[in-house]
Amino acid sequence: MQNTVVNINGTCLPSHRSNEGNISVFDRSFLYGDSLYEVIRTYNGRFVFMPEHLRRLRESAKLCHLKIKQSDRELSHYVKSSYAEFCKLYAKNLGSKTPDAYIRIVVSRGTGKIGFGLNNLLTPTTVVTYVLPLTQPTKADFEKGYTMRVVKRLRNDPRALDPAMKSGNYLNSLLAYLEAQDEGDTDALLVNHMGFLTEGTTFNIFYAKNGIVATPPLDIGILDGITRRQIIQEAKKLGIEVREIRFTKERLYEADEVFLSSTLKDAFPITYVDGKKIANGKPGPITRKLKKAMVGFYEKNFG
Amino acid sequence: MQNTVVNINGTCLPSHRSNEGNISVFDRSFLYGDSLYEVIRTYNGRFVFMPEHLRRLRESAKLCHLKIKQSDRELSHYVKSSYAEFCKLYAKNLGSKTPDAYIRIVVSRGTGKIGFGLNNLLTPTTVVTYVLPLTQPTKADFEKGYTMRVVKRLRNDPRALDPAMKSGNYLNSLLAYLEAQDEGDTDALLVNHMGFLTEGTTFNIFYAKNGIVATPPLDIGILDGITRRQIIQEAKKLGIEVREIRFTKERLYEADEVFLSSTLKDAFPITYVDGKKIANGKPGPITRKLKKAMVGFYEKNFG
Repeated sequence: MQNTVVNINGTCLPSHRSNEGNISVFDRSFLYGDSLYEVIRTYNGRFVFMPEHLRRLRESAKLCHLKIKQSDRELSHYVKSSYAEFCKLYAKNLGSKTPDAYIRIVVSRGTGKIGFGLNNLLTPTTVVTYVLPLTQPTKADFEKGYTMRVVKRLRNDPRALDPAMKSGNYLNSLLAYLEAQDEGDTDALLVNHMGFLTEGTTFNIFYAKNGIVATPPLDIGILDGITRRQIIQEAKKLGIEVREIRFTKERLYEADEVFLSSTLKDAFPITYVDGKKIANGKPGPITRKLKKAMVGFYEKNFG
Repeated sequence: MQNTVVNINGTCLPSHRSNEGNISVFDRSFLYGDSLYEVIRTYNGRFVFMPEHLRRLRESAKLCHLKIKQSDRELSHYVKSSYAEFCKLYAKNLGSKTPDAYIRIVVSRGTGKIGFGLNNLLTPTTVVTYVLPLTQPTKADFEKGYTMRVVKRLRNDPRALDPAMKSGNYLNSLLAYLEAQDEGDTDALLVNHMGFLTEGTTFNIFYAKNGIVATPPLDIGILDGITRRQIIQEAKKLGIEVREIRFTKERLYEADEVFLSSTLKDAFPITYVDGKKIANGKPGPITRKLKKAMVGFYEKNFG
């Protein structure tokens, strides 16, 4: 893959051979999706919320009964050394000194014999780190916003497979995404079996009405988004009330603003839901304020 | 892996190098569990229900919006040529001429760039075929039966991720299995959000009471088991009534017999559920009759 660094268990592949990054067909991730992951971004060359991401990886591991052999020190070394390689690659190819990056870290339970039993595991956890150029929405993308579809497919029930666990079992989100794309929309929002909004395929969801911001509570079965948490903090600092409440899709149709939060997109406007224009179809003032606050937060802490 | 044949897209690896069977870290199966699979067994060297397994693979593919590039002819050629290699390996190592085998066929959506979009796919579907020695329960295992736990974890909701689709998203079953093992049981049975029994981690479930056999209906959200179907046929041929009905775990506690069905185990007794002995704790007459009928069916059709 062009301009991509692949690191397997701490060893970076030469950049021209990153396509050859391989894992065993006996890897549990290949057989069962038996793996966890996190996505970390850099801002001005610094890792955003790295300790928080590594902490959440451990939380996912608990939910999955997976013992990560590597220490946080080792994991962050993998990330840092992979990013250093990426910077070298970029300096050489593009002359850019501190290119920002998308960093994905995947931890598989390891390689073994086919079969569920943990005694079938022959290796400890395998860690694959990917570093790619960070592609972010442009200012024009922001002004346009995303169109979202509340899909028929339900979010995974947390009692079956907890969305709080960032695992390699990603078909629920993928199939929701394909359903939304089939409808001509950017991406999907998912409800639970009660019809309450949960989250998007790879992001949390918010709306604003009469100056108050609302977002589904964690116990509805969603990812404890690191950006979601920061956005709630930033809103509070701005004197905006934030409520964690259950709501159905109709609430979005009637909202003044709808936006998403994610590591890669901070606060990002949603201008259409199910083909219905939200307010005047433009990013609203609270979304803009929160986007600005997030950039300010990054500048202050990682700038 | 010892005595294992690995075949990738039609090419068998030399047996001493089957450990080196690798796929790309950009494979969708590694990233998202974005793959499907089937397990086929041989009986006296003949493939049991191969067309039915390939048909079900196509059904899974439909549910997953995955286009399998390979034709059924190609897929069955992969299976046959891999099994031929396996037989050669066995003749050399163990002097056995027609060793029976466990054959797993995994179809991944392919390799591409990170991201959901199908336009990120750079290769067509990848097929990995594994052939391993078939290990079957002994007569003593059958007499003892399995102890099952109805776990707290719910079966995946078919509206979120349909268990009828045999996919590489297997954490729901894996985590149920680990929960049962923690309780000291062989394996797990899962209920849905209404408390109705669905299926086990890798098998369908039946009980018998007053000479009538019952099993959950397909529309509760379970795998359309090929062995389940055949067992229903065999029971009918024996004049045993079979009902497809919804039932809770208490019905199992009070049953005369409980048994499972799977490709690898045909009809197999369950003698304990949640620590409670089922009847006298021994395989019952209907289970024995159905096991015998299944062996008779294999003999007649594949012997």
